Amino acid sequence: MNPNPNPLLNIPMRHEDAATRLNVGKTIVSTILCKALQRRLPEHAVHYLKPVSTGPSVEEDNRHIATFAKGVHARRLFQFSEPVSPHIAARSSKEDVSDKNILDCVHQELSGYAQSEDGVVIVETAGGVLSPAPSGSLQADLYRPLRLPVLLVGDHRLGGIGTSISAFESLHIRGYDVQSIMMFENSVYDNATYLREYFLDRGISTYTVPPPPRPATSIARDQEAMAGYYERTSRMEHVADFIERFSAKHDARIKNLGSMADRADQSIWHPFTQHQDRPKDSIITIDSAHGDFFQTYGTEESVGSTLSSTNESSISSDTTSLLKPAFDGSASWWTQGLGHGNPQLALAAAHASGRYGHVMFAGAVHEPALNLAETLLQHVDNPRLKKVFYTDNGSTGMEVAVKMALRAACVRYGWSSEDEVQILGLKGSYHGDTIGTMDCSEPSTYNKKVEWYRGRGHWFDFPQVKMRRGVWVVEPPEGMEAEFGPARTFESLDEVFQLEQRDIATYEAYITRELERLTKEEGRRFGALVMEPVILGAGGMLFADPLFQHTLARIVRSSSHLFSHSTSTPSSSNPSSATTDWAGLPLIHDEVFTGLYRLGRFTSSSFLRTHPDISVHAKLLTGGLVPLCVTLASQSIFDAFLSGAKSDALLHGHSYTAHAVGCTVAETSLHQMSSMEARGAWDAFKASWRPDHHNSSPPTPSRPNAAPAQPTPRSGTAPTWSMWSRPFATALSHHPRVDSVTALGSVLAISLRDPAGAAGYSSTAANALRDSLLAASDGWAMHSRVLGNVLYLMASQTSSVETVRAVEARVLAAL
Amino acid sequence: MNPNPNPLLNIPMRHEDAATRLNVGKTIVSTILCKALQRRLPEHAVHYLKPVSTGPSVEEDNRHIATFAKGVHARRLFQFSEPVSPHIAARSSKEDVSDKNILDCVHQELSGYAQSEDGVVIVETAGGVLSPAPSGSLQADLYRPLRLPVLLVGDHRLGGIGTSISAFESLHIRGYDVQSIMMFENSVYDNATYLREYFLDRGISTYTVPPPPRPATSIARDQEAMAGYYERTSRMEHVADFIERFSAKHDARIKNLGSMADRADQSIWHPFTQHQDRPKDSIITIDSAHGDFFQTYGTEESVGSTLSSTNESSISSDTTSLLKPAFDGSASWWTQGLGHGNPQLALAAAHASGRYGHVMFAGAVHEPALNLAETLLQHVDNPRLKKVFYTDNGSTGMEVAVKMALRAACVRYGWSSEDEVQILGLKGSYHGDTIGTMDCSEPSTYNKKVEWYRGRGHWFDFPQVKMRRGVWVVEPPEGMEAEFGPARTFESLDEVFQLEQRDIATYEAYITRELERLTKEEGRRFGALVMEPVILGAGGMLFADPLFQHTLARIVRSSSHLFSHSTSTPSSSNPSSATTDWAGLPLIHDEVFTGLYRLGRFTSSSFLRTHPDISVHAKLLTGGLVPLCVTLASQSIFDAFLSGAKSDALLHGHSYTAHAVGCTVAETSLHQMSSMEARGAWDAFKASWRPDHHNSSPPTPSRPNAAPAQPTPRSGTAPTWSMWSRPFATALSHHPRVDSVTALGSVLAISLRDPAGAAGYSSTAANALRDSLLAASDGWAMHSRVLGNVLYLMASQTSSVETVRAVEARVLAAL
Repeated sequence: MNPNPNPLLNIPMRHEDAATRLNVGKTIVSTILCKALQRRLPEHAVHYLKPVSTGPSVEEDNRHIATFAKGVHARRLFQFSEPVSPHIAARSSKEDVSDKNILDCVHQELSGYAQSEDGVVIVETAGGVLSPAPSGSLQADLYRPLRLPVLLVGDHRLGGIGTSISAFESLHIRGYDVQSIMMFENSVYDNATYLREYFLDRGISTYTVPPPPRPATSIARDQEAMAGYYERTSRMEHVADFIERFSAKHDARIKNLGSMADRADQSIWHPFTQHQDRPKDSIITIDSAHGDFFQTYGTEESVGSTLSSTNESSISSDTTSLLKPAFDGSASWWTQGLGHGNPQLALAAAHASGRYGHVMFAGAVHEPALNLAETLLQHVDNPRLKKVFYTDNGSTGMEVAVKMALRAACVRYGWSSEDEVQILGLKGSYHGDTIGTMDCSEPSTYNKKVEWYRGRGHWFDFPQVKMRRGVWVVEPPEGMEAEFGPARTFESLDEVFQLEQRDIATYEAYITRELERLTKEEGRRFGALVMEPVILGAGGMLFADPLFQHTLARIVRSSSHLFSHSTSTPSSSNPSSATTDWAGLPLIHDEVFTGLYRLGRFTSSSFLRTHPDISVHAKLLTGGLVPLCVTLASQSIFDAFLSGAKSDALLHGHSYTAHAVGCTVAETSLHQMSSMEARGAWDAFKASWRPDHHNSSPPTPSRPNAAPAQPTPRSGTAPTWSMWSRPFATALSHHPRVDSVTALGSVLAISLRDPAGAAGYSSTAANALRDSLLAASDGWAMHSRVLGNVLYLMASQTSSVETVRAVEARVLAAL
Repeated sequence: MNPNPNPLLNIPMRHEDAATRLNVGKTIVSTILCKALQRRLPEHAVHYLKPVSTGPSVEEDNRHIATFAKGVHARRLFQFSEPVSPHIAARSSKEDVSDKNILDCVHQELSGYAQSEDGVVIVETAGGVLSPAPSGSLQADLYRPLRLPVLLVGDHRLGGIGTSISAFESLHIRGYDVQSIMMFENSVYDNATYLREYFLDRGISTYTVPPPPRPATSIARDQEAMAGYYERTSRMEHVADFIERFSAKHDARIKNLGSMADRADQSIWHPFTQHQDRPKDSIITIDSAHGDFFQTYGTEESVGSTLSSTNESSISSDTTSLLKPAFDGSASWWTQGLGHGNPQLALAAAHASGRYGHVMFAGAVHEPALNLAETLLQHVDNPRLKKVFYTDNGSTGMEVAVKMALRAACVRYGWSSEDEVQILGLKGSYHGDTIGTMDCSEPSTYNKKVEWYRGRGHWFDFPQVKMRRGVWVVEPPEGMEAEFGPARTFESLDEVFQLEQRDIATYEAYITRELERLTKEEGRRFGALVMEPVILGAGGMLFADPLFQHTLARIVRSSSHLFSHSTSTPSSSNPSSATTDWAGLPLIHDEVFTGLYRLGRFTSSSFLRTHPDISVHAKLLTGGLVPLCVTLASQSIFDAFLSGAKSDALLHGHSYTAHAVGCTVAETSLHQMSSMEARGAWDAFKASWRPDHHNSSPPTPSRPNAAPAQPTPRSGTAPTWSMWSRPFATALSHHPRVDSVTALGSVLAISLRDPAGAAGYSSTAANALRDSLLAASDGWAMHSRVLGNVLYLMASQTSSVETVRAVEARVLAAL
């Protein structure tokens, strides 16, 4: 499996044809360069690779290089004789013309050159930069995983300035580095003069060569004339200069890559990092990223030697692969949904930049912010949520959520801002790094040394869902069997989520007892219930029993009498459950990590069959491109801020609130993800989780104390599934080094046994596995993150089955 | 003055030629459409406008429309007979071919059509979408302020798929709405089939028309053949369908614009807004933005009638200007530096999206983040600052700054995180909306009702700089003459900033006294001095006496003995002033608003001649496009987090930390702004602030107690200036409604007298001025924001002198 065939970077060059027809002279420019390279590097092999070619002149073109640049190793991989776009020509072909196969072939070819000898290769594409490939993909998209440095062949003809710049832009927005422009001289239109200046401003050099001689009267004379032409042009000083500079840029790039970790160590203060004794080479240099993979600069031994050999400015010689794809196993800190370098998102970001830039949002509205708000309110499928408040990240969105809830509670219960009001939550929760959201979690490694941290709340212990030796269990925290009952096993993960089938009485009794103790005995005031639905991420990928979370919300909502601290409940404080007014305490769902398809559904609240009064969404909101967060609130929360006084308003708002780029990208992402859901894009993943014979027995009748079916969000009854296969999870769970496993949606968490007996964030049990996954050296590595003894993996919503299965095989092998 | 000629939007259409040469058939398509429109709308005038044309066929083309679409009103504005790109053809022209003049002419022409009759206009551009205009600008950039809906003429020839898509992308990233594609049929290449599907996915319809007949043997026959061709094609059903849909889209757009304020009122919870009794029509609908101007949807009476008349789906008739440019007077909440819709920033954002998307930053590095960090550390010109920590906005960046400072102080002074440690600051300061940063400000309207707010600090009163009746004064706060001395006048703003010439003794004595009281008498512990240098933004654009801020930092730095709470100062706590170690307390400069050229210099710290230990930069960092923030810290601050324990690290980091899009855009912006500084782009603004005869006297010798010249950042002695002219500021300061004025860099603040005697945030004195500026109806309006009795205006760093002066004239007229 080669999930992301990837480059060697040994000075490949790539030609692009900026114009409509072949006569901008791509092959002629290639021939000139081949000859010039041969002259410049007499001891090196010069390769010419044309992955796809069409037209009757295919054979002739083949001979062209052979005739005029003798000794160049010319290869064509896919040839079609019809003089039409490859996507049409390929229709009648029996070859495998999928993007994957073409890319694999090109990669194999390039790897061959790199391994067999010192050399240089020119890769010439077919048609223009966005001409369709045989599969119908745009060429620039097809070759993007290679991200070869680009020489763009400019158009010397009338109108060629515009088409050359447009071609540059199409490459640039796909993340290519266009290093130079080369084009024919033309004294009438003189496009080169304009383009030279235009591109110089962008750090790109433009070169011209004389146009080839006009066709002569006989083939022999023509050949002679062309031979003379190539002889002259390939010796021209500025052609040599081009090669020098292209090569120097390449060397500079490699040198730069080699220096980046050191320089980062100098100038960057990394997040969540103890810098003392951190080895510099632990800093991963990411050159680019595509799909599920980083393109990382190697830190192995081989690289040192390569670096020194490329230190001189020459087109040459390094046969070592400098860049290595690494699977982005943390989905870049849980953000990635639509893959790195997604061209649709890049274009959406650029359009919003071009249309608005950023426009102030106080007292204003623009289309991207409005459309996104409406889309979200519609898709969360929660009749309570009516208003959208924008911020920049999960932490600020949670600050807003807490401000909203506390105000609503204080207004209803008549407390002042001087009163000490706290929140209810779960142990191991994490809501962000700003001090207000830190205060929403119990003291832990994350916050206990932060000077202004003052945990303000009570946090419940809770039973967790785990797979042990192939069996799903719900386990109480250690030593809490008395409160939660003993561990229970389930025949499937679905069964865990069939809340109405399960016994709710134990949890009800425990929670009620606790709430009475906290409020009546201890006299504490609470203003919100705050939970991460289903999976508590930063706390260690803790998979909470959904029934416990459901029950906690339910009991809190029916306990206004406990929270109001008065004997008679105010008339407005206990609305009927049919309304969308909040009751007991405002319920905040922190879906920053779990929402928007991370767990396979639009909301993670749907798993709990609970409609929160406030919910917060971030990471996947923009598909993994730029920061943006939304806090959704119910009308009754909103109403708590209404008054005649400005000072009663929610006086919160960041400068880039509802920035057009983020909102546009988010709308594009959500549309793409919900389309994927609608068209069954994840069916292949779901297959491995389909109910098997265990589940074919008829559902057991509801127990007397089962959770009520109301309210049941739309997707609440859909079966649970994960992109990580059930056989994989099962195999892991049987492994002797593994304590337990959880898998849901795109998330997999492997809890490792700590031989030293440590647990949680302070354990280092998972580090060895992480390191061995990263060190793998056969073509691609795996980058992953650990949380103490837990190694987790996260796919993107666009990860292919093939990629995920390959990663699974790696993990099993590494264990 | 028409700073931003702007469209009427009465169904203008615009043709773009996707390909190299004229023969994709733009004029032919135009002719077909003109005829079809005439047929469809017999009672309406059909206009054809070609702003720029070149080539020997100019005359012929003129006749073409006249011959084949009789009755169409065809206009050409700028004609050049050379058959080359307009930028070459225009060289020999004596006409004014500046972008401004061409745009003004087009706007005038379109306005004329709109005012005189019901009608529809087709605007046909010259060459391809990115062909150079006469001035050398790219055409798509030239016409961008009009942002007319686009019909792209696709290329039917070999290679035309790629060039058509590239042309679309070049338009799309500039913020255009490409509504449809129209192109000739071609059965060989069949580009239309591919493009139809491709664009359908993007919500864009593709139409084909038969190619025109081949040239006939005589002119007469040719004419006849063409006439027949136009007769046939203009009657084709799908041409009618195109017109129908184009028109329907236009109507839908207007309807959408009309509904947005209402819908926003439904679904959006606006920042910093009291929603009770808010009139819906106070919500401004922003359709797009360009340069310094929003394009807003009108809310005046005229609009209502227009809306109803365009309610039916027809190409027709509304003669009212629907969109109105409004000067973005708050620089979109203080963010804008390089103008809305800046194509360089759009392209930079797209490139980073295409190259990386977002890649996780923990333990990793990528080029944009590293380059930006190095650029910042170099440009802040502060030998203390060595490390860059990334967050998403000013508030989170300030949370990080406070965490850094408190830790450093606690480590040095041996306090635990249980100890109550506070900060020192200034009254009226504002550092963000998250609870931790709110706690850094004294109780105020902004925070006092936030349930978890607990102001943790002491905030000094301070003297302010103001212009009153043309004279710069430094005034003590009311009733504090005893502490600060009486108000002092200065001959120029420069003189205020000549700190070494001024008397420092009074401030020194006061500050020392206060610090002793706070620490010795009250026994309070402090962990940081936090200041916004020079201008305290949200607090009401308070212009602090730079000498006071300078002195406060200086005294705090020499007062370790007060802060350490021990009789003997620890050996490490009072390093020599020559080192870059912090002393006394870590000094945080919150430059979120004032930094990065907002006040005319890279840092606002340079005005104070003080090197902070920590500085925070945000708003202008990305030139005004996306959220990003940096917290810069000294080595000694960084070192306070080093230990063998992970839990001692700065455990802070948002998901999108150092996102590649933000870092790339920021690097591009900073480069552009510092290039502007280097090439004297602001010289015309500076001219009005040059020292006049008052300042020609030789500098007076330093006084004995003057502030020491060390350390003096590079730009510390540059004269002060503002984009707002001195005559304007002076005139304002003499106005009876004005209490005082301040101007520095791109910021102007007008403090209005409140007839009711209210002051500060609770005053509404500035609202009337704001409203009258917004209501102005001769072509453009002014959008501005108030802070209580202060109306402020903020230019972008790219605002033109002409625009700023026009705004000044408006303000004087409105007063």
